[in-house]
Amino acid sequence: MKVGILGYGNLGRGIECAIKQNDDMELKAVFTRRNPEDVKILTEGVPVYSVNDIESKKDEIDVLILCGGSATDLPKQTPEYAKYFNVVDSFDTHARIPEHFNNVDKSAKENGHTALISCGWDPGMFSLNRLYANAILPEGNDYTFWGKGVSQGHSDAIRRVEGVKDGKQYTIPVESALEAVRNCENPELTTRQKHTRECFVVPEEGADLAKIEETIKNMPNYFSDYDTTVHFITEEELKANHSGIPHGGFVFRTGKTGWNGEHNHVIEYSLKLDSNPEFTASVIVSYARAVCRLNAEGQTGCKTVFDIAPAYLSSKSGAELRKTLL
Amino acid sequence: MKVGILGYGNLGRGIECAIKQNDDMELKAVFTRRNPEDVKILTEGVPVYSVNDIESKKDEIDVLILCGGSATDLPKQTPEYAKYFNVVDSFDTHARIPEHFNNVDKSAKENGHTALISCGWDPGMFSLNRLYANAILPEGNDYTFWGKGVSQGHSDAIRRVEGVKDGKQYTIPVESALEAVRNCENPELTTRQKHTRECFVVPEEGADLAKIEETIKNMPNYFSDYDTTVHFITEEELKANHSGIPHGGFVFRTGKTGWNGEHNHVIEYSLKLDSNPEFTASVIVSYARAVCRLNAEGQTGCKTVFDIAPAYLSSKSGAELRKTLL
Repeated sequence: MKVGILGYGNLGRGIECAIKQNDDMELKAVFTRRNPEDVKILTEGVPVYSVNDIESKKDEIDVLILCGGSATDLPKQTPEYAKYFNVVDSFDTHARIPEHFNNVDKSAKENGHTALISCGWDPGMFSLNRLYANAILPEGNDYTFWGKGVSQGHSDAIRRVEGVKDGKQYTIPVESALEAVRNCENPELTTRQKHTRECFVVPEEGADLAKIEETIKNMPNYFSDYDTTVHFITEEELKANHSGIPHGGFVFRTGKTGWNGEHNHVIEYSLKLDSNPEFTASVIVSYARAVCRLNAEGQTGCKTVFDIAPAYLSSKSGAELRKTLL
Repeated sequence: MKVGILGYGNLGRGIECAIKQNDDMELKAVFTRRNPEDVKILTEGVPVYSVNDIESKKDEIDVLILCGGSATDLPKQTPEYAKYFNVVDSFDTHARIPEHFNNVDKSAKENGHTALISCGWDPGMFSLNRLYANAILPEGNDYTFWGKGVSQGHSDAIRRVEGVKDGKQYTIPVESALEAVRNCENPELTTRQKHTRECFVVPEEGADLAKIEETIKNMPNYFSDYDTTVHFITEEELKANHSGIPHGGFVFRTGKTGWNGEHNHVIEYSLKLDSNPEFTASVIVSYARAVCRLNAEGQTGCKTVFDIAPAYLSSKSGAELRKTLL
């Protein structure tokens, strides 16, 4: 399976690493909007091309993985490149998924390609677990918690505060809320009761620390609805202790069965990830395999993780899977 | 969707309860090997027939759910009834799944039916989680723990001991082993290090308690490889505190990503179930929906949970699922 990567940031590099772990896959090319000569990749002997040359490579690539952002890149890129390639993206703006799906579906179908959107862990593996658990327990409640992990958006928000040189923000699920869910108490949880936010801030020299803390804690949308802690640290401490991109979270469904709903059940799925982009990339690469197979079977158009039979993700045969994993 | 149930024990009753929770399903008939007049079911107005009359009802039923045992019932029943019906079973003898699959596949294909075998939570949801996690993290380790829950086989083994009137056995995962796995220590665990066994025994009057305990603890295959605790209790206590059939467990995959495997990840799926048969039944009923849909699409033969795209399990449309759960 010959794989192309469009966009070589954290996610693109994660895709490259994941391909290395899968014997049936080969990285064929990386495409970039930057000057290709400025992009140094890890895999020896694989070319980096300008995105302007991408169309000319369409016959060399079985599936193109789009590593752009959801705000402005993917809404344009995925429908555009589904004209020339089978594609996978990690579009994660939940509210705009139906619109994105329709755009990509039209383009992929018209050109005989297979596309998979919104792949990763949320949307992605978390969505899958919500779907399975809802189908199994029709009478019940869903809970999703995120963290402990770094939120890129919230870290960016901190860095925009006056007097802040650098910073990282961790989203942390509230332990007592997790426990209440696990105990089938079916709590109704406010935003504040579900997650706390912890900020590590490097102030500029002479900055007003009290004012920075105040500004962060009262920032609407980002922090004002949460219990937020602000720690001031040095640049060295930030680099030494907070340079990773960990994340994770929990998906629960609690539900009832029995003639009179007399029995409780808890389904819990959780992830603890050292590297958010590398795990996301690993999910995407397994679905890239599925996309190639579906296209070979003539199943074109846009798909999501909901539409893919799990066996398509594995390099093993059906018989091997039944023997070893069922 | 018109559903038939063959076999009205704990699982069959669980299927009946699950059907009640799904608006697009209707219990059409229960078939039994007993005298139908002796079988009282919960749903009003639904007939109970002798299994001898089952073939004559084949046009009234969209999917037949087989609730027999894996040892002797299902190896015969599933291929036999796949001649006349779309079928779902919960065959759980892992080692014999490939053989069972082939037998059912042949029968279902020859007769234009769709069959799904080995449905439930293990095999079933646990298998699915092993497959997804293995596809995502090709370099890693798998761990499955069962419990805390009642093992029917081990409870039966206790009851066969001389001087034992009744008893229940709980399988309990070892907390320190779970923690070692969660911490990515990748432990190599012996049987004894993974689970303990706790027995609640009602002795017959005047029985030799020391001898009963000794016999249980040294029973090969069942108990001798485990740290086993034996509690002697009264019949009333057994009834009051141990009449449920709870179960559950944990499936983990821990794995590495990164150019040099520098990042660790933990995928954990767990179930905490008040009623093992009712949860199993709930899984089966959602897959019964998928079986009917696949058959309507002309996809015949034997399937497992690996072969079913998740969207087929839900009564919601693709657009609705993308909007609400992705």
